[in-house]
Amino acid sequence: MHEARPRSAILLIHCPDRQGIVAAVTEFLFRHRGNILQLDQHVDTERRIFFMRVEWDLARFTLDADEIAARFARTIGRRFRMTFRLHFSDEVTRIAVFVTRLPHCLYDLLARTHSEEWRARIAVVVGNHPELADVAARFGIDFELFPITPRNRLAQERRQMDLLRRLGIDLVVLARYMQVLGPRFVAAYEGRIINIHHSFLPAFPGARPYHSAHERGVKIIGATSHYVTSELDAGPIIEQDVVRVSHRDGVPDLVRKGRDLEQLVLSRAVWAHLERKVLAYGNRTVVFA
Amino acid sequence: MHEARPRSAILLIHCPDRQGIVAAVTEFLFRHRGNILQLDQHVDTERRIFFMRVEWDLARFTLDADEIAARFARTIGRRFRMTFRLHFSDEVTRIAVFVTRLPHCLYDLLARTHSEEWRARIAVVVGNHPELADVAARFGIDFELFPITPRNRLAQERRQMDLLRRLGIDLVVLARYMQVLGPRFVAAYEGRIINIHHSFLPAFPGARPYHSAHERGVKIIGATSHYVTSELDAGPIIEQDVVRVSHRDGVPDLVRKGRDLEQLVLSRAVWAHLERKVLAYGNRTVVFA
Amino acid sequence: MHEARPRSAILLIHCPDRQGIVAAVTEFLFRHRGNILQLDQHVDTERRIFFMRVEWDLARFTLDADEIAARFARTIGRRFRMTFRLHFSDEVTRIAVFVTRLPHCLYDLLARTHSEEWRARIAVVVGNHPELADVAARFGIDFELFPITPRNRLAQERRQMDLLRRLGIDLVVLARYMQVLGPRFVAAYEGRIINIHHSFLPAFPGARPYHSAHERGVKIIGATSHYVTSELDAGPIIEQDVVRVSHRDGVPDLVRKGRDLEQLVLSRAVWAHLERKVLAYGNRTVVFA
Amino acid sequence: MHEARPRSAILLIHCPDRQGIVAAVTEFLFRHRGNILQLDQHVDTERRIFFMRVEWDLARFTLDADEIAARFARTIGRRFRMTFRLHFSDEVTRIAVFVTRLPHCLYDLLARTHSEEWRARIAVVVGNHPELADVAARFGIDFELFPITPRNRLAQERRQMDLLRRLGIDLVVLARYMQVLGPRFVAAYEGRIINIHHSFLPAFPGARPYHSAHERGVKIIGATSHYVTSELDAGPIIEQDVVRVSHRDGVPDLVRKGRDLEQLVLSRAVWAHLERKVLAYGNRTVVFA
Repeated sequence: MHEARPRSAILLIHCPDRQGIVAAVTEFLFRHRGNILQLDQHVDTERRIFFMRVEWDLARFTLDADEIAARFARTIGRRFRMTFRLHFSDEVTRIAVFVTRLPHCLYDLLARTHSEEWRARIAVVVGNHPELADVAARFGIDFELFPITPRNRLAQERRQMDLLRRLGIDLVVLARYMQVLGPRFVAAYEGRIINIHHSFLPAFPGARPYHSAHERGVKIIGATSHYVTSELDAGPIIEQDVVRVSHRDGVPDLVRKGRDLEQLVLSRAVWAHLERKVLAYGNRTVVFA
Repeated sequence: MHEARPRSAILLIHCPDRQGIVAAVTEFLFRHRGNILQLDQHVDTERRIFFMRVEWDLARFTLDADEIAARFARTIGRRFRMTFRLHFSDEVTRIAVFVTRLPHCLYDLLARTHSEEWRARIAVVVGNHPELADVAARFGIDFELFPITPRNRLAQERRQMDLLRRLGIDLVVLARYMQVLGPRFVAAYEGRIINIHHSFLPAFPGARPYHSAHERGVKIIGATSHYVTSELDAGPIIEQDVVRVSHRDGVPDLVRKGRDLEQLVLSRAVWAHLERKVLAYGNRTVVFA
Repeated sequence: MHEARPRSAILLIHCPDRQGIVAAVTEFLFRHRGNILQLDQHVDTERRIFFMRVEWDLARFTLDADEIAARFARTIGRRFRMTFRLHFSDEVTRIAVFVTRLPHCLYDLLARTHSEEWRARIAVVVGNHPELADVAARFGIDFELFPITPRNRLAQERRQMDLLRRLGIDLVVLARYMQVLGPRFVAAYEGRIINIHHSFLPAFPGARPYHSAHERGVKIIGATSHYVTSELDAGPIIEQDVVRVSHRDGVPDLVRKGRDLEQLVLSRAVWAHLERKVLAYGNRTVVFA
Repeated sequence: MHEARPRSAILLIHCPDRQGIVAAVTEFLFRHRGNILQLDQHVDTERRIFFMRVEWDLARFTLDADEIAARFARTIGRRFRMTFRLHFSDEVTRIAVFVTRLPHCLYDLLARTHSEEWRARIAVVVGNHPELADVAARFGIDFELFPITPRNRLAQERRQMDLLRRLGIDLVVLARYMQVLGPRFVAAYEGRIINIHHSFLPAFPGARPYHSAHERGVKIIGATSHYVTSELDAGPIIEQDVVRVSHRDGVPDLVRKGRDLEQLVLSRAVWAHLERKVLAYGNRTVVFA
């Protein structure tokens, strides 16, 4: 399924805005015979921050892959005081999926990785309840159970972090995981934990958003995928989408319609992250097209 | 533009739910030779309330139009303890549009009434600023200026209510009117004041929702049309819609994209009201298809 | 996952339109103490056909489930020359899924049935290529391989029909099955074969719609789920949806975006069919809300 | 309404793709102290064509506005064999709107220009029927009547073209104009005639698309705005959008729902054109974000 693509490199950059940045970066690539496949830039004019994503073909690039970052850092990077990340198109992201009892997002993530729609591998499924062990087993993925109580929470999170470290996890996906992660966990995986919240944030944060939506009588419900920060349901939003509802729809109907939305919005967000299209800053994201 | 339709009658009913309501109502219409054009019903199973909208052809109906309500009330209505409203398809609703400075919703409402897309007449435009007098004049509509200050608010609202009474106004449309109406005004026109709020309520109530949406970094913005109640931006929602935005969109872009949404959502809500398709109860609406 | 519901009955009716149908049906239910849960009706005023879906609670219904159909047929049914189908909410529909090589729709259908989101059972997966046998096996479902060549087509279809008969299949779902079914198969399962076509029909029927869409430079692509008839991609449409694309999207991007759409549109159509909400007539459908 | 913006210049470029284009253009701007406000590029990898839109602040730009084009042409332009257009943000586009009898798109265009939402001026309304003369008059715009018959068509088109030339028209907007323009007219305003077609092209081209859509039983209808070419309804698409319909919607309902869509899609297309965001090539468009 995964389309064969020639190996390319991706630079994600942000820095204080000033004149000449695009010229400098593109000249650097041109000089080393890098053919630009896609270039997108954005300036946050209020905060005066420059953002850029550039992807180029490595076929005839004259720098070795492992010297690009250093060379770029000490020339362009230093000159413009850039923060940047360098990725390669053939990296395989290692994912840990956290779940509780609802299977739909997990099924969707498993189908997409197993059919090689995504260049990623689910290395482990972590549950605080045992219900979804069978689903993981169906796909031959390890399931690790970490029951959470108010007393053992911190200890369990330490054990979870050990596991993720041991497995070399790059990305944590909370697939309707009904626990709040502690600040140490969040700090360790900053910008690398994606959650799906079953409302159109900032409307209806917290628990039971479908009940609240029904109570309020809204005509549209939504789902929001965001990076997890220490503040609940307030991290940088990656993707949102909505679906129309009516007076006929009781809470079970909202749950049913929302389910499709949740897995779609979560998978779009994970895909954008895997494609290195997302730059988070402050409480916002730049999601390049 | 307005399609010629034979004269029909519309009953909007709600009552405690019990067996036999549909049978009784449809038998009543059948007995008097009323051909049902459209029938829609809904049961709020939690609150055990029955809702119904039925429209029938009056061509061969054996009751005179002006005796239908009384006859229905003392038979079916009494038996099921119904609250009902009877309308006729040839009624022309008289509208007062309240505005401040933004013209887009006003233009849209004027175009729809003047082209006879709607069976309604804008009898007056009320402004708390003079800017839009020209727009009203362009369409030959009276513009009445009521400047509002904290001190004169109550007196001005009394004068506004006098005007509406004198003009026989059936419906007040707040077309980006930047004032909060007082409780006496709201009570006098309960269920007959429609507002457009420029956010996807309940997200971003109150002032400057586009600024708040931009600040929060949402990927979708919305607009909400609702009946006005004494609580700000909390009345029964009639219609909502959304449009996608991105990191590229600054506040002026949100304002621009939102403008189209506002006038569309407002006009859909007014249309549903004019077609007698909306039943408000508690803080919710039934909007029949 | 599947919400526990009390047992109910569903009548799907169509007949020539005339006065008194709703009154007669609801009076029939009322007389036998059937509490109406949902009633929806529609009149095709051009063709003068009446359509109705009514669902009622069987808890206190005074007719036995197995005598309802006969009693209804010889009273109301005969009087109004109705065609009707009677269903019960606890029926479990037996599905055969036909596939070729693309797994996404199959995964989605398997996840929905296995998580008991739907009251249905996938009894067999039929493939004309062996690629997806593994996916079926992962969920413990039989996979039957029927390679198709121009010469063996008719014989293979006969064998497929034998298999479906033996398994008591109620519904055939073509989940990106890349073969055209012959007229005998189609006739045998009229109104019970649902296909997903990867375009917004009637635009781009036939093969390679994403290539055609890209070639034409459309800004939106779609997917269409419909009942299969003897004419290719021309059967009654159950559900459609679309997604926005841009000049940046090459054919592989359309394929990727379309994939999500296909499985969503197919699953919505199958769900509406399972819930007995769809009435096909001529080349159209009534899909009750 | 129109936000005050500092004067900027916009370059729209396309040329054969090769390495170093972005570097060359941005270096040119940097050297003359042009601060890039927005840069977007696209490569059609199949056809190997490079597209770019770059907008920069003129405040401290060291070239005079009227020498930019010539300087750019004989350096970068020549080197990369570019086709380019240079625009300035303070240009006021002069529009001729062509209409027949339906007023909704005309009202919308008039409202947007009169409220200064757009930096454009409607210089004339051209009708082949007299019905909309009043609407133009309401806004103080000249209305010119050109009745069209099979016999006078060519002569009338010549007269229309004379009028447009005399008025210095930059853009022709066909706002539900029910006539096909001849090849000479189309050639004279290539890439400068925008039409709205009331279907989701390529579905339902030609006359009466709502009737065809209803006949086919589609669940979604659309509208398409495109540049006019010599082939009917086949020019490069600028914008499309859709709205959901159901079995309840007869042709008049499709017309009503479609009306809102038509004016929205048309105005989005005109806005993109006015903002110099559209590049047409072959039968496709690049519409920069």
